[in-house]
Amino acid sequence: MDVLNLGMVGGGTVGSGVFHALQQNGEVLARRIGVRIQVRKVAVKAVDEPRPYPIPHRFLTTDWRAVVEDPEVHLVTELVGGTTVARTIVLTALRLGKPVITANKALLSAHGPELFREAERHGTNLYYEASVCGGIPIIKALREGFVGNRIRALYGIVNGTCNYILTRMARDRADFPTVLAEAQRQGYAETPPDLDIDGHDAQHKTGILASLAHGTWIPASRINVEGIRSVTPLDLEFAAQLGYTIKLLGIVKQLNAPESDEDPTEVQVSVYPALIPSAHVLAGVQGVFNAVFVRGDVVGDTLFYGQGAGKDATASAVLSDLADAALDVRLGTRRRRPAFVEVPGRIRVVPMDEIVTRSFVRLSVVDRPGVLARIAAVFGQAKIGIASVIQPEGHTGEVVPLILMLHEAPDGAVRKALARIGRLPVVKAPPVRFRVESLS
Amino acid sequence: MDVLNLGMVGGGTVGSGVFHALQQNGEVLARRIGVRIQVRKVAVKAVDEPRPYPIPHRFLTTDWRAVVEDPEVHLVTELVGGTTVARTIVLTALRLGKPVITANKALLSAHGPELFREAERHGTNLYYEASVCGGIPIIKALREGFVGNRIRALYGIVNGTCNYILTRMARDRADFPTVLAEAQRQGYAETPPDLDIDGHDAQHKTGILASLAHGTWIPASRINVEGIRSVTPLDLEFAAQLGYTIKLLGIVKQLNAPESDEDPTEVQVSVYPALIPSAHVLAGVQGVFNAVFVRGDVVGDTLFYGQGAGKDATASAVLSDLADAALDVRLGTRRRRPAFVEVPGRIRVVPMDEIVTRSFVRLSVVDRPGVLARIAAVFGQAKIGIASVIQPEGHTGEVVPLILMLHEAPDGAVRKALARIGRLPVVKAPPVRFRVESLS
Ligand SMILES: NC(=O)c1ccc[n+]([C@@H]2O[C@H](COP(=O)([O-])OP(=O)(O)OC[C@H]3O[C@@H](n4cnc5c(N)ncnc54)[C@H](OP(=O)(O)O)[C@@H]3O)[C@@H](O)[C@H]2O)c1
Ligand SMILES: NC(=O)c1ccc[n+]([C@@H]2O[C@H](COP(=O)([O-])OP(=O)(O)OC[C@H]3O[C@@H](n4cnc5c(N)ncnc54)[C@H](OP(=O)(O)O)[C@@H]3O)[C@@H](O)[C@H]2O)c1
Repeated sequence: MDVLNLGMVGGGTVGSGVFHALQQNGEVLARRIGVRIQVRKVAVKAVDEPRPYPIPHRFLTTDWRAVVEDPEVHLVTELVGGTTVARTIVLTALRLGKPVITANKALLSAHGPELFREAERHGTNLYYEASVCGGIPIIKALREGFVGNRIRALYGIVNGTCNYILTRMARDRADFPTVLAEAQRQGYAETPPDLDIDGHDAQHKTGILASLAHGTWIPASRINVEGIRSVTPLDLEFAAQLGYTIKLLGIVKQLNAPESDEDPTEVQVSVYPALIPSAHVLAGVQGVFNAVFVRGDVVGDTLFYGQGAGKDATASAVLSDLADAALDVRLGTRRRRPAFVEVPGRIRVVPMDEIVTRSFVRLSVVDRPGVLARIAAVFGQAKIGIASVIQPEGHTGEVVPLILMLHEAPDGAVRKALARIGRLPVVKAPPVRFRVESLS
Repeated sequence: MDVLNLGMVGGGTVGSGVFHALQQNGEVLARRIGVRIQVRKVAVKAVDEPRPYPIPHRFLTTDWRAVVEDPEVHLVTELVGGTTVARTIVLTALRLGKPVITANKALLSAHGPELFREAERHGTNLYYEASVCGGIPIIKALREGFVGNRIRALYGIVNGTCNYILTRMARDRADFPTVLAEAQRQGYAETPPDLDIDGHDAQHKTGILASLAHGTWIPASRINVEGIRSVTPLDLEFAAQLGYTIKLLGIVKQLNAPESDEDPTEVQVSVYPALIPSAHVLAGVQGVFNAVFVRGDVVGDTLFYGQGAGKDATASAVLSDLADAALDVRLGTRRRRPAFVEVPGRIRVVPMDEIVTRSFVRLSVVDRPGVLARIAAVFGQAKIGIASVIQPEGHTGEVVPLILMLHEAPDGAVRKALARIGRLPVVKAPPVRFRVESLS
């Protein structure tokens, strides 16, 4: 059987997971693809660092260049993270014509097109299944499974930390800081947690999925992002009463049906916490699990669910890429499925202000007649319809909650109206608002 | 751009769906893979038959041999169905070295190994993503996405007709014949419906998934199958009260952890209606939708959800295979991922009698003291523990229902005990029993 040598850079959470999975299942993988993948060296920052799975000393080195440049190394994994040294590692390997497997969504988000170009220039390829939703083979599904589809809509729960926090808040009626602190203690959230809870990790992943779906690279700068800091147990509770669950979603939605090739395809690409119907499969995704709901024009509605992170689930995705890369090296077909394929056609990423959605609004108002009339007047002037008003029972005191469900309206108009409402003397706290996604 | 010609045999539900999808998205597919797939001819039984999507007359012929043998045809789809002429069509194309794409699970189930051998002998390949769960790319996920995993367990809702009927029965408290008749009127069930509702279609699909998961071809004859005719609205109602939903499941479960390569891996492969926890994601799969829950030793728990049948969803899977086949032809890598890879290692498909599960039992008993003691005595003698007994309220008359949840016990023992219980004078109808799958 053919043997290919793997040079690993990074032996931390994911790297040691990959090392361990290859030890455990390398033989069955070899039988399945007809190529044996053998770890040659693992470059790390400090050899004596403790690792989730042990890596024997003889494999370890602190010299990543020696690993990548070793002429006996045929495949390279970059499992370091970040956008600085990781970029150099990937570029160095690609320039040597070596296929690179990475889990680094931040790097792809920041430098995707540069890396794709470099891979093409040197007749090699970049594989990144592990960069989005850990163990869920969503990139393969989009690129290969749905190769005959136009992706009409994609809604992803792509950040396990946020989903864990929202699930716990809903279940235990606990507030955000409490649950976050606990998640950090239990290792479900990083310290600092900003990358996750402010939505940037989801933004990177959503950008990758949106780009693959539409065949145009969509940089993070064009993706509106809002995190989950503003969600309170009260919102989760009222949403539940109305039949909704709040989830942080990555959203990629085609908004028009272009008549000709001249017309741009208009696409929404954004990340925000949204109310989704509790009966929808996506609402049932609990805890650290991830899921991606994909609507293709041919296939219809589909859902992919699994663990979005963790040493093992992520390693499973790296092994999948390793198998593809190994086959491509052995068969001399490194450009079989290029890392990114530009599909001609104009894409307009629609600015958030123009995006039309329904809204859930929670106001803190003084408990006095006439208040609703004042608020309704502002929405009326802005031509925003009110679908329903709920004054939840059991709240007493000077200031009480008032819940409004608004009809579809452009985001800019809703935000302006809410700013005005926030300045009304009868409104005692900044308005809270979440968009409603029917997913239909 | 390279162009490959496609010869289609079968232009019915799936065939016309493929033709239409290629018209609609052939251009974007070509851009994505760098090869244009062009339909050359479509063989059908009768040219003037009405079709779900129209196929222009100039494409149609009734001579499938002429299509398959046309030297200008590079790829062949078999979308005829059945195991007779379809087998001849596939063998003819394979013997000409042409890659064949099929959606025919019955053919694979009956003749898989013969077709795989013939493909190997002639240096070509057979692709069958569309044969299991229509639009869900589950075969790609198992073979490629989870290439680095051993599949510990797989539970599939793989027959949309059965899932539709069970969903409607549960929702409307309607009985099986009524819902079946309605499903037939609406086109959700075939006439006759036996292949679906007696579980044979699920058996074919489960066999394919089990074989891929374990690298040994598992013929239908080794797969215990029970359909959904025995499910009543009463069972669905009592199951729901206990927190369960009844679904027809295809089950592939590894039962042991072999210590050495000498020990066989013991696997359960079966199809039966089972109680699953209502809170589980699989329980939320409604109507004609399919879903497959896969537990890999590296990736953990995953779920794949989508439409399991229909002209469009199935066409999406055929297009995915067409893209792979086209790349393989263009790059000369037809054996890149052989249709079936035998993985060494002994597999023992455990006979149903030895399978250990919990059970839900519904008895129709006379409403008299001492009845439970008689029944409990039989279970006690058989060493089968009773977890709980429920005498549902609101049932009056001579004969009342009695629900028992049994602890884990071998299937053979449970069946024997139930046969004895069925003969007790106090038991007035054949015992109804469903297995309980915790999915944990
Ligand atoms: N963790 C997850 O669940 C997960 C899931 C999906 C994707 N990812 C992505 O996977 C990548 C790796 O994440 P991780 O969680 O595995 O990170 P990690 O645990 O921090 O591991 C990083 C590894 O890189 C090594 N390293 C750092 N600088 C290096 C240098 N200059 N030369 C050689 N090695 C160096 C570290 O060495 P030491 O071991 O000596 O410190 C460590 O082994 C990131 O891009 C992340 O976004 C992670
Ligand atoms: N329907 C689904 O949703 C679905 C989903 C997954 C998989 N599948 C599988 O896909 C396959 C096709 O199913 P289907 O529903 O498309 O069946 P279908 O609608 O009955 O179509 C069968 C096609 O085969 C043609 N045909 C029959 N005998 C022929 C012959 N001797 N020579 C040439 N053509 C012949 C028929 O011609 P006419 O058009 O002239 O009658 C028709 O076009 C089956 O294996 C099925 O199990 C179906």
